[in-house]
Amino acid sequence: MDKIKLGIIGAGRIGKLHVDNLKNLKNVEIKSISDIFVDNIKEWAEQNGIQVITDNYMNIINDPEINAVFICSPTDTHVQIIKDAAKAGKHIFCEKPISFSLEQTVQLLETLRQSKVKFQTGFNRRFDHNMSRVQELVSQGKVGDPHILKITSRDPAPPHKEYIKNCGGLFIDMSIHDFDIARFVIGSEVEEVYVQGAVLVDPVFAEFNDIDTAIISLKFKNGALGVIDNSRQAHYYDQRVEVFGSKGCVTIQNDFPNSAELSTADGVQKDKPLYFFLERYNTAYINEVQAFIEAILNDTPVLVNQNDGFQAELIAHAAKLSYLEKRPVRIEEITNRLVNITI
Amino acid sequence: MDKIKLGIIGAGRIGKLHVDNLKNLKNVEIKSISDIFVDNIKEWAEQNGIQVITDNYMNIINDPEINAVFICSPTDTHVQIIKDAAKAGKHIFCEKPISFSLEQTVQLLETLRQSKVKFQTGFNRRFDHNMSRVQELVSQGKVGDPHILKITSRDPAPPHKEYIKNCGGLFIDMSIHDFDIARFVIGSEVEEVYVQGAVLVDPVFAEFNDIDTAIISLKFKNGALGVIDNSRQAHYYDQRVEVFGSKGCVTIQNDFPNSAELSTADGVQKDKPLYFFLERYNTAYINEVQAFIEAILNDTPVLVNQNDGFQAELIAHAAKLSYLEKRPVRIEEITNRLVNITI
Amino acid sequence: MDKIKLGIIGAGRIGKLHVDNLKNLKNVEIKSISDIFVDNIKEWAEQNGIQVITDNYMNIINDPEINAVFICSPTDTHVQIIKDAAKAGKHIFCEKPISFSLEQTVQLLETLRQSKVKFQTGFNRRFDHNMSRVQELVSQGKVGDPHILKITSRDPAPPHKEYIKNCGGLFIDMSIHDFDIARFVIGSEVEEVYVQGAVLVDPVFAEFNDIDTAIISLKFKNGALGVIDNSRQAHYYDQRVEVFGSKGCVTIQNDFPNSAELSTADGVQKDKPLYFFLERYNTAYINEVQAFIEAILNDTPVLVNQNDGFQAELIAHAAKLSYLEKRPVRIEEITNRLVNITI
Amino acid sequence: MDKIKLGIIGAGRIGKLHVDNLKNLKNVEIKSISDIFVDNIKEWAEQNGIQVITDNYMNIINDPEINAVFICSPTDTHVQIIKDAAKAGKHIFCEKPISFSLEQTVQLLETLRQSKVKFQTGFNRRFDHNMSRVQELVSQGKVGDPHILKITSRDPAPPHKEYIKNCGGLFIDMSIHDFDIARFVIGSEVEEVYVQGAVLVDPVFAEFNDIDTAIISLKFKNGALGVIDNSRQAHYYDQRVEVFGSKGCVTIQNDFPNSAELSTADGVQKDKPLYFFLERYNTAYINEVQAFIEAILNDTPVLVNQNDGFQAELIAHAAKLSYLEKRPVRIEEITNRLVNITI
Repeated sequence: MDKIKLGIIGAGRIGKLHVDNLKNLKNVEIKSISDIFVDNIKEWAEQNGIQVITDNYMNIINDPEINAVFICSPTDTHVQIIKDAAKAGKHIFCEKPISFSLEQTVQLLETLRQSKVKFQTGFNRRFDHNMSRVQELVSQGKVGDPHILKITSRDPAPPHKEYIKNCGGLFIDMSIHDFDIARFVIGSEVEEVYVQGAVLVDPVFAEFNDIDTAIISLKFKNGALGVIDNSRQAHYYDQRVEVFGSKGCVTIQNDFPNSAELSTADGVQKDKPLYFFLERYNTAYINEVQAFIEAILNDTPVLVNQNDGFQAELIAHAAKLSYLEKRPVRIEEITNRLVNITI
Repeated sequence: MDKIKLGIIGAGRIGKLHVDNLKNLKNVEIKSISDIFVDNIKEWAEQNGIQVITDNYMNIINDPEINAVFICSPTDTHVQIIKDAAKAGKHIFCEKPISFSLEQTVQLLETLRQSKVKFQTGFNRRFDHNMSRVQELVSQGKVGDPHILKITSRDPAPPHKEYIKNCGGLFIDMSIHDFDIARFVIGSEVEEVYVQGAVLVDPVFAEFNDIDTAIISLKFKNGALGVIDNSRQAHYYDQRVEVFGSKGCVTIQNDFPNSAELSTADGVQKDKPLYFFLERYNTAYINEVQAFIEAILNDTPVLVNQNDGFQAELIAHAAKLSYLEKRPVRIEEITNRLVNITI
Repeated sequence: MDKIKLGIIGAGRIGKLHVDNLKNLKNVEIKSISDIFVDNIKEWAEQNGIQVITDNYMNIINDPEINAVFICSPTDTHVQIIKDAAKAGKHIFCEKPISFSLEQTVQLLETLRQSKVKFQTGFNRRFDHNMSRVQELVSQGKVGDPHILKITSRDPAPPHKEYIKNCGGLFIDMSIHDFDIARFVIGSEVEEVYVQGAVLVDPVFAEFNDIDTAIISLKFKNGALGVIDNSRQAHYYDQRVEVFGSKGCVTIQNDFPNSAELSTADGVQKDKPLYFFLERYNTAYINEVQAFIEAILNDTPVLVNQNDGFQAELIAHAAKLSYLEKRPVRIEEITNRLVNITI
Repeated sequence: MDKIKLGIIGAGRIGKLHVDNLKNLKNVEIKSISDIFVDNIKEWAEQNGIQVITDNYMNIINDPEINAVFICSPTDTHVQIIKDAAKAGKHIFCEKPISFSLEQTVQLLETLRQSKVKFQTGFNRRFDHNMSRVQELVSQGKVGDPHILKITSRDPAPPHKEYIKNCGGLFIDMSIHDFDIARFVIGSEVEEVYVQGAVLVDPVFAEFNDIDTAIISLKFKNGALGVIDNSRQAHYYDQRVEVFGSKGCVTIQNDFPNSAELSTADGVQKDKPLYFFLERYNTAYINEVQAFIEAILNDTPVLVNQNDGFQAELIAHAAKLSYLEKRPVRIEEITNRLVNITI
């Protein structure tokens, strides 16, 4: 294949972002886009040279010219769209999480296995210049055997109430990125989770039985320990990772808008780190869609697939259980339940 | 009082260190020193102008000229010496931990309350330029209400086998410093502890039912969460703290032997952080004895007293229980047992 | 005007770079491109949707639909093209330097004054996130009155021999960017220059009476002093600026590909700074063409005009004279000669 | 020799500082001290256990027990004291500059050559942890052949008027340290100097024909170029060095009182660098006297001798001439004059 025709399903913030990045890629044509609020996107879609603008994603799925779809619609629509797309043999790029239900995600794993379409989960951070450098150094053995992983992942400000209500909670909405990065940089599966959570930022989280602050302890199958700390309000985007091992330690820091440092009688000042995930992960978003397109063009495996999506969801569900029952939870405990259910 | 006469009990590494620092202080005379291996220290003590060199610490305690003692002998001798010194009305500087037994430490609290001598616990890190700056900024409200505390505390290399055998284990020997710093910078007591521990550095730790790597989650009474990560082998002395709160975040980094950075075609290199605690906390050790002397001279409270010693021990014992029973442990659970015992 | 039609004159490395950046801008159509090696660019130009591909730039100049041209051809062609474009009323974006001859640049100043077209000189660094932040802080008075300016500007590796031969020498080819940044951040004209130069990197520079290493001292009209150090071989792209004044000091550092720091028993390592000017000034190149387009659309002044190009050339010529005659040279001395000539 | 008896000549700020550092050294006894204001120092000297307290330095010089003297009196007294001490066979530690007169310094070189006493010039910065690391890395060839040296050396605040009047001017008082560091890290003599100077901080400097701001360009015999920038008012002590060479670049930064960084919605803040030279070079002062004592004890050469003092003075005088005559000055020009005079 030397030119890929794409359909975009869902034209919210993230759908538009992908369009912006995809349109600069060679060998890519964004042919179609669907959104239930089709009127809102018409002008924008036309300006971007998209031919087909529809409120029914099946018009994309059923188009024999379309090679692949980007699923950027709300999480509760993912399962049906994935099934439809897989059935139609379209390659799939799907935003995280795949679904809110582990049972449904498990079923999709089977569906996808049979369909043989490529499936990439939207864990963009793997494609970040800092995160990927950590993974590279660790996998090259530069820190020796990993002993301790530390991830700091804090949003600049809490989302609005409606978002909180529908996002599935801190673990599945926000920490899920960190669970993926944990697996990515350590190169081993998580075995056990323990969570300390709190509502410290805004009482609104408590209204939805959610939390806004967490310290999540991890135990990996290779023996390493890990800890993730999350907050919904850091006043800037705080994204740092450290892997400490038998030979040494690698750390990454936040990205800044500039390196200017002002030193006066009062002290030294610089601008705060980048505020927003779109700025911070700007290049990562470009890289992830490029990688997906290349995997299709070259018929090579995607770099982050449905199993990666599933494993992160497993940890998120274990984390939630740990928080609710105030005890360490083994991932096995979650998968055992799933087996019972899926049989 | 305008000149303090001191006796040093125990002339090992730390006893000698205190002598080196104390002899530069005004208004201080180191009159006496005791050590069970008295012959080993004679020459050194004479060079330092110390008059009385004895193998029996009671010769110091019974000297009416002595105002204060430094207890630098092995932990299992602390309790008796503290009792003797308190009875004799000598002010006490005692290395950490006060004792290996919570019951004994509790008893000493009562003894010390009655004697009214000043008692300083050897938590030198409170006097470190970095640690004290964090505490200052947090207590000034610069980060707002504390939400998350992170302490990284890693030794350069494991101690020798004999030390491991007698040190009381990771929590009471090493993490105890971090428990003190946690209370110091957050300004609130710890309520609950959960520990993930592992033997990743050297199997010798397992021989003594000890661990060499830990991630310790904390919950504070003021609602803040915390996490400490410990390792016995970082190849340099890794001592970092972060307090994140409603308004912002303060971090401290390691100290380096110099700031030289070499940039070549191969990358950028600098020397690793200071290797040893004596280098890293050099000034902190000077500051802590100075503060003790000033508290006596001015009859003001010491900055870190017997209760600080006790509270850190409580957390250490809770941490051990959490590790052994693989569950979160509330400090209350430990103090409740103590009440039962001490009644 | 709500859509600008552009012609690109010269499709070498920098011409192609501008096309890449311009094609992502709204309200911009790249209609035409000219290059004397027209066959080499045909396929690339077609892929980029450029209609007119020609070996004669007059086909662009004479096209009444064209609003503005980008002059990206060799320096010795600039003067004629600028005259032609100005006469035809096209707005002009011209790469630096405007010309190798101060007399010719002076004449163009007059031509441009009469034509009233907008003229932007390609000093991209003014649009860099670091450089522009320095200028902002200095102009806001954050460092008080500027006392000392320091610019470090070093290329990763020397250009090839053919380039050295034709580039006009270190000052007009490379330092000219630093002369512009000096004026930009200090906000005052240069009054005097003194140069120490040397051939330390490669004897090939001596063959063309050029140098590869220089320390250039500056005196500004507002009293501030300055120093620029240049090298043709730093093994990475070294671009740092410092402005020190009565109230304090602002510094900017190099940009790095990532923030990963690896700490081991051997020391601390990180990747070297970005290697190439296209990486380092990637965003600056985008910003400068965006600013040019906006100046046309809104009929506002360009941010770096022909006088900025001329002033930097003046300093470059004074620097050359200083180097040749081993003495400080006042800018006045250069302008006085020009007046004599142009009268 | 296994114990050195010292006499201190001059008990001002720097004399007292040396006493504080010397008294902690093994094998050292400070026997005597002289100061013309002998009453002011009596109590302090007695507390430090100094036996002989006199207003006549000859009482120290004539004491056969004294092995070495520290000359900490005003610069204009150095020459006579050095002659007397050398004649009496005392080793000499002398603060910088040796004298205000090159002719006199030249004469002392001869006197010292004949006397064979050890003579150390008080260039303490060579013993600084940062400066010495730069020298080490450069001499190990880590940056290859040196191409560019950059020294930033700025005082926190101008000295008082009386000091300015008597200090000999910026070059001999302040820059002289930088001239020594320049020679030290580059490992080659300076060949030519060019100075741009200004009065930007305080008009009081102009009253004494002095300046407060300078950019000093250097050319070294090995071909390297260099630049020093000086200011009398940086609001903190600004001491940075960079050596750039054929293979890479080494930089050192300022030292800070702590590493605490506070990140909030408003930006990132940290405390300013150390304010005062006594804090910044605290360890350097200890190291330099230790090195002097060891050179005597082991009869090894001192690490910074009278020639180092002389060479730095040569550059200072060349710098002054360059400033006055607004032209580059070769060191040769200065030494040629000296030869004429001293013959």
